[in-house]
Amino acid sequence: MDTPKKQYWKTKLHDIIYEAETPAGKLFDVVLLITIITSIILVMLESVNSIDIKYHNFLNISEWIITILFSIEYIARIITVKKPFKYITSFYGIIDLLSTVPKYISLIFGGVHALAALRALRLLRIFRILKLARYLGASNNLVNALKASRAKISVFLFAVLIIAIILGTIMYLIEGEENGFSNIPKSVYWCIVTLTTVGFGDIAPQTPLGQFIASLVMILGYGIIAVPTGIVSAEYSTQKKSKKESKNQKVHLNSLSCVNCMAEKHKDGAQFCYKCGHNLHND
Amino acid sequence: MDTPKKQYWKTKLHDIIYEAETPAGKLFDVVLLITIITSIILVMLESVNSIDIKYHNFLNISEWIITILFSIEYIARIITVKKPFKYITSFYGIIDLLSTVPKYISLIFGGVHALAALRALRLLRIFRILKLARYLGASNNLVNALKASRAKISVFLFAVLIIAIILGTIMYLIEGEENGFSNIPKSVYWCIVTLTTVGFGDIAPQTPLGQFIASLVMILGYGIIAVPTGIVSAEYSTQKKSKKESKNQKVHLNSLSCVNCMAEKHKDGAQFCYKCGHNLHND
Amino acid sequence: MDTPKKQYWKTKLHDIIYEAETPAGKLFDVVLLITIITSIILVMLESVNSIDIKYHNFLNISEWIITILFSIEYIARIITVKKPFKYITSFYGIIDLLSTVPKYISLIFGGVHALAALRALRLLRIFRILKLARYLGASNNLVNALKASRAKISVFLFAVLIIAIILGTIMYLIEGEENGFSNIPKSVYWCIVTLTTVGFGDIAPQTPLGQFIASLVMILGYGIIAVPTGIVSAEYSTQKKSKKESKNQKVHLNSLSCVNCMAEKHKDGAQFCYKCGHNLHND
Amino acid sequence: MDTPKKQYWKTKLHDIIYEAETPAGKLFDVVLLITIITSIILVMLESVNSIDIKYHNFLNISEWIITILFSIEYIARIITVKKPFKYITSFYGIIDLLSTVPKYISLIFGGVHALAALRALRLLRIFRILKLARYLGASNNLVNALKASRAKISVFLFAVLIIAIILGTIMYLIEGEENGFSNIPKSVYWCIVTLTTVGFGDIAPQTPLGQFIASLVMILGYGIIAVPTGIVSAEYSTQKKSKKESKNQKVHLNSLSCVNCMAEKHKDGAQFCYKCGHNLHND
Repeated sequence: MDTPKKQYWKTKLHDIIYEAETPAGKLFDVVLLITIITSIILVMLESVNSIDIKYHNFLNISEWIITILFSIEYIARIITVKKPFKYITSFYGIIDLLSTVPKYISLIFGGVHALAALRALRLLRIFRILKLARYLGASNNLVNALKASRAKISVFLFAVLIIAIILGTIMYLIEGEENGFSNIPKSVYWCIVTLTTVGFGDIAPQTPLGQFIASLVMILGYGIIAVPTGIVSAEYSTQKKSKKESKNQKVHLNSLSCVNCMAEKHKDGAQFCYKCGHNLHND
Repeated sequence: MDTPKKQYWKTKLHDIIYEAETPAGKLFDVVLLITIITSIILVMLESVNSIDIKYHNFLNISEWIITILFSIEYIARIITVKKPFKYITSFYGIIDLLSTVPKYISLIFGGVHALAALRALRLLRIFRILKLARYLGASNNLVNALKASRAKISVFLFAVLIIAIILGTIMYLIEGEENGFSNIPKSVYWCIVTLTTVGFGDIAPQTPLGQFIASLVMILGYGIIAVPTGIVSAEYSTQKKSKKESKNQKVHLNSLSCVNCMAEKHKDGAQFCYKCGHNLHND
Repeated sequence: MDTPKKQYWKTKLHDIIYEAETPAGKLFDVVLLITIITSIILVMLESVNSIDIKYHNFLNISEWIITILFSIEYIARIITVKKPFKYITSFYGIIDLLSTVPKYISLIFGGVHALAALRALRLLRIFRILKLARYLGASNNLVNALKASRAKISVFLFAVLIIAIILGTIMYLIEGEENGFSNIPKSVYWCIVTLTTVGFGDIAPQTPLGQFIASLVMILGYGIIAVPTGIVSAEYSTQKKSKKESKNQKVHLNSLSCVNCMAEKHKDGAQFCYKCGHNLHND
Repeated sequence: MDTPKKQYWKTKLHDIIYEAETPAGKLFDVVLLITIITSIILVMLESVNSIDIKYHNFLNISEWIITILFSIEYIARIITVKKPFKYITSFYGIIDLLSTVPKYISLIFGGVHALAALRALRLLRIFRILKLARYLGASNNLVNALKASRAKISVFLFAVLIIAIILGTIMYLIEGEENGFSNIPKSVYWCIVTLTTVGFGDIAPQTPLGQFIASLVMILGYGIIAVPTGIVSAEYSTQKKSKKESKNQKVHLNSLSCVNCMAEKHKDGAQFCYKCGHNLHND
């Protein structure tokens, strides 16, 4: 369908957008990174009333520039990917869309509050540029340790929740509405605030019995914080050891990504995509 | 005493209620789980005044339905168990009774506050359905680690309590009633709030000397949190290793429970109950 | 100097007071334990105004009974020990004295506030009865782990203090008196409150810059809590291992204490005191 | 350029100031330590209004004495070092200058607030005297453990920051200005306060939905505190083991420092500076 020249430009653009190791690709990533961070700072500043009043025009124009840049990027991504629909429905595809849409909608419906803040989701795009997943690849054991302890931590958190509901109900009975424990959900909220040792103090027990039970809750919370820590710590140690033992795990990954299916983490020297079999070096 | 047909139905019902692996048993567990969670949400909503006023009738009727369902289940459990008295006096037997009784009592004495909240104890029944103990069986090392470190953690908590009483008394002497430390129990309460790094802030030292000692308390609390964490972490590591070493620990447990004595965690292929010797497969 | 009969009674009394393994010694310890705990509860209740007004006489008489009991015990201890002066100047000797004196002084000077609370120090006597040190002997690795990591934890706490002073000074400059950071010591206090994640909230940054730096302080505090935990955890693991390796460490200690020098933790079957050479079984 | 006598005195002075093992050097260090601590206490006291008014003259004169002492020390350091410029531009050189300058400037511009507090930076000089780095040398594994886990902790803190921004924005949308979440930066600040379990309570969610999300934030914060702890703990264990294995690491360092380039941590018996080749024992 495409002429060879068009095809050439598409491949070129694909390299710039999706690859991180060519000079152009690196530049693209850095520019994108700066744009995203600028955009987040703008969203933040806009929410500060005194700043918004003073610099409204500047903020508005900057936001339009960023929105247009993101729109161009979004379209470029759709064009250069071989399977655009797959990209559009992917996690990053949706985030990319949500990064551009709010400003356009505000043209029609006016500056809706919630829409403006939606732009903070742009922050999630940072993960793509930093390819944090790959960076974490170096500390894969941490991720593995968390995965290995996920089930246990879930059971632990579930137990914490049940403790919070039961103790929250007891506190509601003891303290009652006149001391701020106006209903069970609020008491449970207080109990979580206390168990996690956050302790806002907006609600605090006033009766001696309430303070006694609160003390038990605090000591309990102080004690059980040891559990997730112990689990992660032990699992992480295990991961480190097992990695040491199997030295043949050191497979070098390059930063190429397949033009066809967008798969990443190809082995060094790989000729074909491990996922779709597309020739990686011969587009 | 029972006719064979009656006996058949009793066994059938027993399977549904106590076993988790037949389709009927699974369905029963799921329905019970939903009922318990619904009932807890109802108790919570009822305690919120604004909701209670609006939807009083709906909440009242739902509560009656749940109470009747629980009553039926309670009676069914008594009938199908061979030793009903043992069930009634068991932990879950009492919880089951407490789950149904409050609504009936409210008929006679009116909607007593404390009774309503008693229903939150229904939450404890969740543990039976989820057979959490068994699920935790997979992460048995955690339980063992906690058991192994129980004694040390007790000594640790006891030491924390003594520190709290002595430092609380000192703070009472320094700060006095005018700064909120109105008596020793309250000062001890404040000390626990601070040692556990909760820090509500409803009572806070105002004098320079008081703030200096408070700083010491905080740093102490910040330091000693390392102790239980270190213990659990190390014990857990040990448990993991010892488990690895003894591979013959992997005894598969099934989800049967004895009709005679309600014992659970029978080995796979066990013919007789390990507790009372009752034939498990030949009721 | 002493007649044989007197000598006999002294040895008898010494056994009751200082030994824990004879029936009389055990009874003495239990009675003393109950007296101490009762006395602490009395001190606490006395500090609560509403209770003190109601039950003043009861509290006063109980306190006199306890004071007299403690006085008798103190004199008995002096008589039965071979080196009374050593006992009087020892840590527990001073605590014992401080446990009895306040009530007598209150006769002369009236019920001075501070004196009353001094009685809370009686709690320290519990350690002697429980011989907690020995109980901890079972979990000696914990004590060793803490000892081994003492130096590092000191350096760590010292670094925390320096961070608190420097960041406290910065916060004082940024927030100033109008936001509660009225002087540097108070700012440092706030900084410790925040670093240890206690967070009373009686002083809280109000300016954007102050809140930004506060965020850094919090994340720092959240991060460095890992350090003491990691140290204790690792040291404790090491202690456990080294204990396993050297099986010949299991030296059984008995609960005898030398009549001559009061040294404890004699090996089972030891004939002479390891400290002063006094014959342990031949008083 | 220098006469032999002058040269002799310079070397002598260098030994006193830079070496810690001669009696004169030790005395110098102790005096300096006391001066620095006194000076910090003065800065602190000066900031307390009530004290400053009472003892203004005493504080002012003491401060002048300390400033002059520090000035003399600063000049002496410049004279005795072979490469003065390198010292002046070094970290400690700048700290030393900042320790003396504020009081002189206050002569011209009056007692500027910020200048006074700048003197708190003197505290940093303590690190030089204590040669904490060397002391930590004993617990080098801790430093290595922190270095080894630096990358992972950075990624972790970065993830925490992103979570804080996104959850902060959500809380801003839910709670809004009327409940204290007046703009996104403030909401993010609140989110960090909560995630780190500090919980000042100056801002606290009021709406049920806000309290529900706050509960999630707290449990998240409570859970992820396990991650840095687990990392440091595991890395520290590894460091300890690897140190045990390689016994030949025990290189004794002496406390000499090169007159030429000020390099420290020379091996015992080293004849020449490892950095600049200067003869260490033949000045």
